[in-house]
Amino acid sequence: MTIAIYPGTFDPITNGHIDILERAIKLFDRVVITIARNSSKNPLFTEQERLDMISGVVKKYKNVEVDSFEGLLVTYARKKKATAIVRGLRAISDFEFEFQMALMNRKLDDMVETVFLMPNEKFTYLNSSIVREIARLGGEVSDFVPPLVRLTLERKIQLSRPSTRQ
Amino acid sequence: MTIAIYPGTFDPITNGHIDILERAIKLFDRVVITIARNSSKNPLFTEQERLDMISGVVKKYKNVEVDSFEGLLVTYARKKKATAIVRGLRAISDFEFEFQMALMNRKLDDMVETVFLMPNEKFTYLNSSIVREIARLGGEVSDFVPPLVRLTLERKIQLSRPSTRQ
Amino acid sequence: MTIAIYPGTFDPITNGHIDILERAIKLFDRVVITIARNSSKNPLFTEQERLDMISGVVKKYKNVEVDSFEGLLVTYARKKKATAIVRGLRAISDFEFEFQMALMNRKLDDMVETVFLMPNEKFTYLNSSIVREIARLGGEVSDFVPPLVRLTLERKIQLSRPSTRQ
Amino acid sequence: MTIAIYPGTFDPITNGHIDILERAIKLFDRVVITIARNSSKNPLFTEQERLDMISGVVKKYKNVEVDSFEGLLVTYARKKKATAIVRGLRAISDFEFEFQMALMNRKLDDMVETVFLMPNEKFTYLNSSIVREIARLGGEVSDFVPPLVRLTLERKIQLSRPSTRQ
Amino acid sequence: MTIAIYPGTFDPITNGHIDILERAIKLFDRVVITIARNSSKNPLFTEQERLDMISGVVKKYKNVEVDSFEGLLVTYARKKKATAIVRGLRAISDFEFEFQMALMNRKLDDMVETVFLMPNEKFTYLNSSIVREIARLGGEVSDFVPPLVRLTLERKIQLSRPSTRQ
Amino acid sequence: MTIAIYPGTFDPITNGHIDILERAIKLFDRVVITIARNSSKNPLFTEQERLDMISGVVKKYKNVEVDSFEGLLVTYARKKKATAIVRGLRAISDFEFEFQMALMNRKLDDMVETVFLMPNEKFTYLNSSIVREIARLGGEVSDFVPPLVRLTLERKIQLSRPSTRQ
Repeated sequence: MTIAIYPGTFDPITNGHIDILERAIKLFDRVVITIARNSSKNPLFTEQERLDMISGVVKKYKNVEVDSFEGLLVTYARKKKATAIVRGLRAISDFEFEFQMALMNRKLDDMVETVFLMPNEKFTYLNSSIVREIARLGGEVSDFVPPLVRLTLERKIQLSRPSTRQ
Repeated sequence: MTIAIYPGTFDPITNGHIDILERAIKLFDRVVITIARNSSKNPLFTEQERLDMISGVVKKYKNVEVDSFEGLLVTYARKKKATAIVRGLRAISDFEFEFQMALMNRKLDDMVETVFLMPNEKFTYLNSSIVREIARLGGEVSDFVPPLVRLTLERKIQLSRPSTRQ
Repeated sequence: MTIAIYPGTFDPITNGHIDILERAIKLFDRVVITIARNSSKNPLFTEQERLDMISGVVKKYKNVEVDSFEGLLVTYARKKKATAIVRGLRAISDFEFEFQMALMNRKLDDMVETVFLMPNEKFTYLNSSIVREIARLGGEVSDFVPPLVRLTLERKIQLSRPSTRQ
Repeated sequence: MTIAIYPGTFDPITNGHIDILERAIKLFDRVVITIARNSSKNPLFTEQERLDMISGVVKKYKNVEVDSFEGLLVTYARKKKATAIVRGLRAISDFEFEFQMALMNRKLDDMVETVFLMPNEKFTYLNSSIVREIARLGGEVSDFVPPLVRLTLERKIQLSRPSTRQ
Repeated sequence: MTIAIYPGTFDPITNGHIDILERAIKLFDRVVITIARNSSKNPLFTEQERLDMISGVVKKYKNVEVDSFEGLLVTYARKKKATAIVRGLRAISDFEFEFQMALMNRKLDDMVETVFLMPNEKFTYLNSSIVREIARLGGEVSDFVPPLVRLTLERKIQLSRPSTRQ
Repeated sequence: MTIAIYPGTFDPITNGHIDILERAIKLFDRVVITIARNSSKNPLFTEQERLDMISGVVKKYKNVEVDSFEGLLVTYARKKKATAIVRGLRAISDFEFEFQMALMNRKLDDMVETVFLMPNEKFTYLNSSIVREIARLGGEVSDFVPPLVRLTLERKIQLSRPSTRQ
């Protein structure tokens, strides 16, 4: 059985992430979508909120596990018996960062291979950060995230507003 | 009448921005140069200082309006009856960020078109951030910004120095 | 009246070219789509065939002229009283080539400004060369070119086949 | 059983290609390394020579088939019951070309997914063309290709020399 | 006598930096490796710790001076009678940032020339930031930094851990 | 004494090449500007014409030798006792090609180091090919090449014209 992990911050999960996930499902017997917990980034959503959004969105797929992890990605991959790390490649700026991470992971453990997939071109310029920014400015994000994420995002933004503006 | 908006942080306006503005003036009947107020960046200059610098610098051009805005750029563009958003493209790193913004704006409102102009090659590697850094280190910025901006910048840097160093 | 020229080889015109043309039409009063005749490339279609395909495709737009030219683009632009040269920017490789051309044109005549427009992201990786290649291999090109171009292309490929294979 | 095809010109196969092949073998049950026959490129080696070199080099791997094909890659992939097309990504210039091909293949048949793998960094700047050039100039290529390919290449270069120089 | 300066943050010095330094030593009579003190970055190591690590690592080379500086790089270069600033170029993202800095330095003082060297390809994706991240996650960094730096880094990480987690 | 070689096709030498040469002269005791004879490119100018143009242009510099070579660049560099190969880096597309060449040269002989210099930004988008194209189209090239080269180029173009057009 081939197992792949799909790691990320998913703050929040977007239609672009789901597009990559669906491609990974076709290639591997089992895919673990997993939140990198010890990221130095300061996320908008708590880990639990992100896990809940991902779980809600991916429950329609078979053979997908939702998880989070701390520490080195390769240590986690080995624990999960994964042979592949899945990453989406959208643009040149992704390319360099992703290659750096993939190469470092390979040096730390050469048993797990990073596999790059290309999202549908309509997601080329989509990422979590721009989705948060549009929501913050009151824009409509339903083209970019699933309905469940849109609701959670709008609630979050509304809650954060009074405290910073009043 | 064709109206274009030229949005930015302008912290401060540089000779590169002015180069792009002059090209936009030749192409459109009216150009609105406008400060994006709700930027998450923490600017060196206040909004009023930036408006004053821009106003001082652009008063010699006809058909240029100086303004600032909050919220989504496309909402503002529509209010201003603009058909074009003008952006300067200098280098590869601009390219990806600018395309992302342009594409998102197009998805939010496809009536306004982003138009990319190329600055004079002598401004290829010029931006506001490097101008602030050179001024902070005591370097000469008169090649990079108009005299009015240089004065304002030097005064600002001098004021900020005692408070952080004493 | 603002006049823009949209130059290219158009061997053949694709849906990506048409996407850029439609954006240019919204920005300028008149757009001249024009074939660069003295290209060093060896085109698949004759100049007349390319003119016919473009004319058939653009006849539904008002204020569009179809033409071809020889010599320097800036000389032609001046003759046409154009203030803008329109170019589509899809990817990094476009970026460098297009900037080189735009800069050279500016040095040769700084009265005409190159304006870069971004096609719909679904055309990011589309160009005439890949369309010809797919047609040559017997693939279906109806997603990439208008029906008239598809017919002309298929006829051309069929004609060229016996002569090279028998 | 997961089947992947690894298509290319392989003129000749290099250590970089073999590095990618070995990574693909770890991810898929069966890998078909296959020469694209109807390439417009004018190869140095005949199809048979390239097939012989690849066969000699890959015979030590299990579950690898050596083949060649004509026509559309996706048609061939479907015939081979492959779910993945494997491609190596080394540098930015690869990136754009490979994405274009992958996207076109996806539009022609969305059942087969292009999977990008990253070679060992020591192969970042290696390709068949530079190997041929070094051999032609009398340089040593044993760091770049397997011994069998080196021998075939040197013999080929020697044979071609008298005919062009005398 | 030709003098070159090799400026950086060196937080900490990596095998990639040392690779560039060794190349510079072959080209110039004297190389000054120097820490940019007034960087806006918030370094993990104090200036003294970084100076100590560099000194320990480079003491085996002749004609290398270890130093730090404040203010404009070109002012410092002139004081040191350097004709060259040495920088390593690894990837595209380096390229744009480094060119911007080099160009600004040239505008501020055109007597000192920026010289770009290419590290061994095995250091293409190595930088100080990823080394700190791997160490923080408990990974092994001995492939990336000299033994002295590894020790200092592990001690630093251990010290910082209780204070932030308890 | 430090010796550098500056290799190229120089078909013809442009102001951009001269800009790089002048920077190399400041860094090295002796610079050999040398034409790569066995290039697979089909040059417009004969080797002798290119040598004559370079000699005419560089005679004002001391310590510059004009030469041509055949075979591997590193073999030639060793014969010339050079420790450095000088190359200009203008843009991203240069970057990848130049790095590939530099790395291959390093693998073939690690005693000679490739040194990249950045031309004045006004030469960012200038190369020999675009100069030939502009001349062919009857454009003015005096901003791009020295007067001697302009004359030789215009004569060459005029001679080639009747033979292809009559």
